[in-house]
Amino acid sequence: MTDEGIFLRNSWYVAAWNHELIDGKKLARTILERPVVVYRGGSGKVVALDDRCCHRAAPLSMGRIEGDDIRCMYHGMKFDPGGKCIQIPGQEKIPPKLGVRSYPCVERYNLIWIWMGDAEKADPNLIVDYPPLADSKWRGLPGYMHYRANWLLIVDNLSDFAHLAFVHTHTLGGSEEYAYKTKPVAIEKLDDGFRVERWHMNADPPPYHCKVIPNRTDKIDRRNIGRMLIPGIFLLDTMFAPAGQGAERGVQVPGTRQYRNAQFMTPETRSSTHFFWNYLHDFDLENPNISLSLRHSLEEAFMEDKAIIEAQQKVFDADPNYQLLAIGADAALTYFRWALARRIEAERNAARAA
Amino acid sequence: MTDEGIFLRNSWYVAAWNHELIDGKKLARTILERPVVVYRGGSGKVVALDDRCCHRAAPLSMGRIEGDDIRCMYHGMKFDPGGKCIQIPGQEKIPPKLGVRSYPCVERYNLIWIWMGDAEKADPNLIVDYPPLADSKWRGLPGYMHYRANWLLIVDNLSDFAHLAFVHTHTLGGSEEYAYKTKPVAIEKLDDGFRVERWHMNADPPPYHCKVIPNRTDKIDRRNIGRMLIPGIFLLDTMFAPAGQGAERGVQVPGTRQYRNAQFMTPETRSSTHFFWNYLHDFDLENPNISLSLRHSLEEAFMEDKAIIEAQQKVFDADPNYQLLAIGADAALTYFRWALARRIEAERNAARAA
Amino acid sequence: MTDEGIFLRNSWYVAAWNHELIDGKKLARTILERPVVVYRGGSGKVVALDDRCCHRAAPLSMGRIEGDDIRCMYHGMKFDPGGKCIQIPGQEKIPPKLGVRSYPCVERYNLIWIWMGDAEKADPNLIVDYPPLADSKWRGLPGYMHYRANWLLIVDNLSDFAHLAFVHTHTLGGSEEYAYKTKPVAIEKLDDGFRVERWHMNADPPPYHCKVIPNRTDKIDRRNIGRMLIPGIFLLDTMFAPAGQGAERGVQVPGTRQYRNAQFMTPETRSSTHFFWNYLHDFDLENPNISLSLRHSLEEAFMEDKAIIEAQQKVFDADPNYQLLAIGADAALTYFRWALARRIEAERNAARAA
Repeated sequence: MTDEGIFLRNSWYVAAWNHELIDGKKLARTILERPVVVYRGGSGKVVALDDRCCHRAAPLSMGRIEGDDIRCMYHGMKFDPGGKCIQIPGQEKIPPKLGVRSYPCVERYNLIWIWMGDAEKADPNLIVDYPPLADSKWRGLPGYMHYRANWLLIVDNLSDFAHLAFVHTHTLGGSEEYAYKTKPVAIEKLDDGFRVERWHMNADPPPYHCKVIPNRTDKIDRRNIGRMLIPGIFLLDTMFAPAGQGAERGVQVPGTRQYRNAQFMTPETRSSTHFFWNYLHDFDLENPNISLSLRHSLEEAFMEDKAIIEAQQKVFDADPNYQLLAIGADAALTYFRWALARRIEAERNAARAA
Repeated sequence: MTDEGIFLRNSWYVAAWNHELIDGKKLARTILERPVVVYRGGSGKVVALDDRCCHRAAPLSMGRIEGDDIRCMYHGMKFDPGGKCIQIPGQEKIPPKLGVRSYPCVERYNLIWIWMGDAEKADPNLIVDYPPLADSKWRGLPGYMHYRANWLLIVDNLSDFAHLAFVHTHTLGGSEEYAYKTKPVAIEKLDDGFRVERWHMNADPPPYHCKVIPNRTDKIDRRNIGRMLIPGIFLLDTMFAPAGQGAERGVQVPGTRQYRNAQFMTPETRSSTHFFWNYLHDFDLENPNISLSLRHSLEEAFMEDKAIIEAQQKVFDADPNYQLLAIGADAALTYFRWALARRIEAERNAARAA
Repeated sequence: MTDEGIFLRNSWYVAAWNHELIDGKKLARTILERPVVVYRGGSGKVVALDDRCCHRAAPLSMGRIEGDDIRCMYHGMKFDPGGKCIQIPGQEKIPPKLGVRSYPCVERYNLIWIWMGDAEKADPNLIVDYPPLADSKWRGLPGYMHYRANWLLIVDNLSDFAHLAFVHTHTLGGSEEYAYKTKPVAIEKLDDGFRVERWHMNADPPPYHCKVIPNRTDKIDRRNIGRMLIPGIFLLDTMFAPAGQGAERGVQVPGTRQYRNAQFMTPETRSSTHFFWNYLHDFDLENPNISLSLRHSLEEAFMEDKAIIEAQQKVFDADPNYQLLAIGADAALTYFRWALARRIEAERNAARAA
């Protein structure tokens, strides 16, 4: 079974939250069906290597960090951060070809970004820019979940917010009305994904928001602006403004509260996904219970998604040829899948030409 | 992997006992390797649909029953009992091709019968007739078991009652003598299976029978008449008559007790089976402990079968080409497998011609 | 999936310790991907048969031992130690072809040896000779472990003792120095494997040895002589002599202690292994705690091996084409794999010619 045509390789993926590397952790994580070990070396540098010793395939994640290097604890071979073998106990000469693959890594926004494709193309400027993740005006608690589902099923889920009405009625949605009364204002096609805006006017605040505000019965105008970006990054700006005061015309209504939400879908395999997220708020920053409450609410909602998305995956596992039928609301996800497929195709063609 | 040639599709299968549908249960059950949701609508009608929303493949069994309809709780699409999509929240026009497959269903004998093949051929008159299941002179408690084994291994098991001697010595059989001293009187080939009759004269009553009769030491003449019918239905009439009084010549001997037993093997997949059964008695009907005792005895015995049949399946899983060698007692099962294969072949030829 | 070219069939393998057959145990064990039942008959004879009744494939290990015969407890067919069917309840004539395969078996050194290939070639004289296993001057407790790994990964492990330094630092190794300061004196190629000798001079005694000796701080000269034999048998003679008194020149140094260690790797499948072992000592024979301590120490060390070897297997499961790069220390394992492959090739050619 080959993965050709399944994944985009020349792209930055989130490999981990940086808090996952504390205390000398050698994090073993499969990414795009390749086993990777990620660790922080003694100098602070983050290293990502193929998690298989080139000698007898023992996992380096069972090894020992020595400075910025790592030693395989089967026969003691030592590798530098570039993957080069620099010591073989009991052997003086080290053949130059001995080594493991090293993956470019960047630490940004408390995330470890990894590049699984051609290392020469790994330009850190290509990492998505999302300032709230690094801005002290925003606060949140980072989360991780593992999905037994293809990452595009999660992308699909996030591409149509009508699901809030039915999947998340009692958590994020608030009522089934959201599906009937609201629509995307516009779906803007981007080179690397899409942007969608959706308003729900004069609505009850949804349950997760109620838990962190004082006036739970006041009507609100709710605006969601989402961007879905290749290879699988979802950035959502949410605003709850007191209803009927012109928020939709750009009025800065007093009492408005905002959220910033970043979600990163990194394929583990073609049928499982690493899901990283943070849900940030810009109010009551001195009260840590706000972040905790939002973290719990979102986790509860993501478990609702997980149940239905993993059920979808089982349907496809049982019948890989099952044909879906599109509805109008699928425009966004259809475009995204098309744009991603075009990028994968271009990458494959370039590789064949080279 | 295709299922062509594995299953007979144009045939009634038992999908469930009707008590499995109480309280608005949306029963998710795979039948002939197809995922099906079965539910009772508000009007009392029983509905069976493909358990995959046509939109994004979410299971309808995770949905919500609304009257006789069912709503997918991912994006809110609603389907009528015929499988037609009748609502898409947020979208006015519904393309006529939107819908899921609906399977003909009939409720009879407290069983839900399903037709997995060509719906136009689903004639309820083809459902097997077994009056004791609907006759108040007979009483029993319905049972269900799941087998990790191909359904024909269970058919085989029931096709040769010599196994009572060895598998069920201490439950249904009574002694190993049953295998040595008794033989099928005749095996009658039917168009849709076979009929077999077997007598055990002047025998001790077997343990399960002893538990529900007063005189446990009196010898009996035991008669079993079994019919095995396509696609996998076993109907067994059992009589225990006081020994030596001419039961084998048709004499109605006072003190005779009778049982009627129906077993339905519905393939879940090619290597797993839904097994439905009821063991009915015609005596002491006012005493509910008789049914309970028989239910427990039979369940105990079926667990003995399950152990050996699932062990067989594991042998074939490990070596699908393992060749069996027939003995004389295999005439019945050999004929049944041949008759079923002929029916499947005919169905396939008809499908190709059409 | 065929096993052709994977296993050497014409060879003696260890099927069990004989204590595994007490109390009429019908041991079900897969060997070289064939299901086998092993039992001791009433006469004391050890029998090994294909663990699938020739009739309907029910496991004979669910059957009943009758004298030296075994009866299938599905329909009661009885087989003699040669695998011939000698009774079918309810049937007088037994077709001569009815029977199951019987495997030659020999009980020696408290081990049950089995021959999975051509029975005519099963010469008991081909069983490896290792006198300490049958010599009352040596004492030990037999052990068994199950590996989810190809047996050659265990062979590899035992072929390079540098791993003692890193995998077994705190159990069998004692320090990482062992990998840097010691080398095989010579690797002697044998027709059926190799012999290797390795010295560690003036070393601290390793932890497992310390636990069974009085003077734990005295330096020792440590000698290991290992033989690895086809199909996967490792015989290790270990000597700890007080340091600096000429043990390496053959001097019989007072206070020297010796161990004899036999390990038998029998493939269960191509990715799992039965591992039998005994670690024998020649001192303090009257003290049973010595054997117990060694048994516990070795088991602890073998768990260290198991963790890393099963991790290797997972790497190969995920990527069967992963290419290894050899180092100098791989000479022994490379030769063994080559010699075994040559034997398998010869066996295959002979089979094709015949």
